[in-house]
Amino acid sequence: MILTLNLNASLDKIYTVDKLEYGGVVRAKIVQNTAGGKGLHVANICKELNENYLATGFLGGKIGEYLQNKLTQKHINHDFISIKNETRTCINITTPDGKQTEILEPGPSINKEETDLFLKKYTQLLTYTDIIVASGSLPNNLPLDFYGTLTQLAKKHHKKFLLDTSGQTLKESLKYKPFFIKPNKDEIEQLTGIKIDSLDTAILQIQKFQNLGISMPVISLGKNGSIIGYQNQIYHAIPPQYKAINAVGSGDAFVAGIAIGLKRNYPIIDIIKLGSACGTANVLEAESGFVSKDNVEKIFNLVKVKQIL
Amino acid sequence: MILTLNLNASLDKIYTVDKLEYGGVVRAKIVQNTAGGKGLHVANICKELNENYLATGFLGGKIGEYLQNKLTQKHINHDFISIKNETRTCINITTPDGKQTEILEPGPSINKEETDLFLKKYTQLLTYTDIIVASGSLPNNLPLDFYGTLTQLAKKHHKKFLLDTSGQTLKESLKYKPFFIKPNKDEIEQLTGIKIDSLDTAILQIQKFQNLGISMPVISLGKNGSIIGYQNQIYHAIPPQYKAINAVGSGDAFVAGIAIGLKRNYPIIDIIKLGSACGTANVLEAESGFVSKDNVEKIFNLVKVKQIL
Repeated sequence: MILTLNLNASLDKIYTVDKLEYGGVVRAKIVQNTAGGKGLHVANICKELNENYLATGFLGGKIGEYLQNKLTQKHINHDFISIKNETRTCINITTPDGKQTEILEPGPSINKEETDLFLKKYTQLLTYTDIIVASGSLPNNLPLDFYGTLTQLAKKHHKKFLLDTSGQTLKESLKYKPFFIKPNKDEIEQLTGIKIDSLDTAILQIQKFQNLGISMPVISLGKNGSIIGYQNQIYHAIPPQYKAINAVGSGDAFVAGIAIGLKRNYPIIDIIKLGSACGTANVLEAESGFVSKDNVEKIFNLVKVKQIL
Repeated sequence: MILTLNLNASLDKIYTVDKLEYGGVVRAKIVQNTAGGKGLHVANICKELNENYLATGFLGGKIGEYLQNKLTQKHINHDFISIKNETRTCINITTPDGKQTEILEPGPSINKEETDLFLKKYTQLLTYTDIIVASGSLPNNLPLDFYGTLTQLAKKHHKKFLLDTSGQTLKESLKYKPFFIKPNKDEIEQLTGIKIDSLDTAILQIQKFQNLGISMPVISLGKNGSIIGYQNQIYHAIPPQYKAINAVGSGDAFVAGIAIGLKRNYPIIDIIKLGSACGTANVLEAESGFVSKDNVEKIFNLVKVKQIL
């Protein structure tokens, strides 16, 4: 089973408006309310590719109940800890020029009792989990090394911990050596202060992560594909190019594909192909963090993977 | 009792952000979730001035339950019809320059059964209501003359119907002759196509409304106070000037003051003074649609009211 952690879930409100006028009032014609969060994107992909999965994390208050209903309606396997405070809401304002203006809430505080309940559930789930995918930010008051704690618990059970987070949370997690990380170019530059302006600088950075003890560090280079470290090897994956309909959630889809490939014990080349195919298939859908199985299968055969070290 | 109608209630999310960057992502530091809507502002003022009142309308889904809890926590008397669809959310993004960028949702559709339940409750409440204050927009699918229907029912029970709405909804309501209307300068110009650029043009417009059979038409002129028609008379009210902390809800506070004055059978001069005092006291509070009783009493004595016709 793949366990997808969505600790800071959100109600994502997507407003499609004719115009976003600073200081003005606009009446929204289209409002979409979706169960948001990178971890739920991973769950979506697992479902679509018929992989056994469960989504967990924290959901609170009336917004949490609303999201729970949404997940049930969408037949997403979920088992969240109910918390007292309200789950956050995030706002996405989409304008006809394709720009998206976003406001992200920090997320609810979680008390000690709720945190303990989660850790208990997580530990129970670890016994029949193969891969853990932890995605996104942490709620307000959880310590920055909370993913580190979860990584240690996973290692105790000999399970692979895939971490997709950024900023200080990523920085504080590195010393716990998660199996997989996937910062993008900008995030690494922010983290290390070193420019990633060529394949060589990316490779150098992958080697640094490998030396830290991270088995599978990945750097996404946008159109130039991605550089993937695996044990002592390094690969360059180049997926076919398509015109993007909606690129949001593409990174999450990539991680989901990697997790599914690992779970199925694919050879490393195929694991990378599946990750790349999912990431690319995501851009062909209007829905964020979603792929069609047919597209993934088609694109899988078109991804080029080259071992460079 | 004053019955305040809030047919299109909303969860108002107020984000205080450092910067609203078009096409950018901002993490909100301060998020306020409040039970919004002009009718609830009127209820707030009634509560603060120890007037007997009840807030009603439609609340739906999990957002509706959340708002119901908020109202209960704030000890606001309420009795809403529960509907199947989710109550709307409205977004207000406040930036350090004092600008407010707003996104308003249209509101839920209400089915026939729910509308009938509301009309039944409304008719029951009319028997022990003195004044009805109807504020704001109508939900998505209610007919534009729905306030007209409510006005007719109020008249049948010999109760005064105070209507504070705008645009097409106001236009379609005029022929039902509500007791009170309060369009602002811009709204009248939009409604009639005639510029309100002097006291005289405002007086002329008030007379037109009086000729239509509206007992108490009011035009707010911002800093120049307001022109109030009452039966065949016309008054000019000039409140003292203060530096505004937050002017949002000032019109609603004005209407609440008028309703309370009418309910208490004050002489017309004092009704106008109370309305103006509440409107002015509102700008001295950070909370929208709220006044302090002490400020209202102080300002009441400083409002100048002159009969001009």
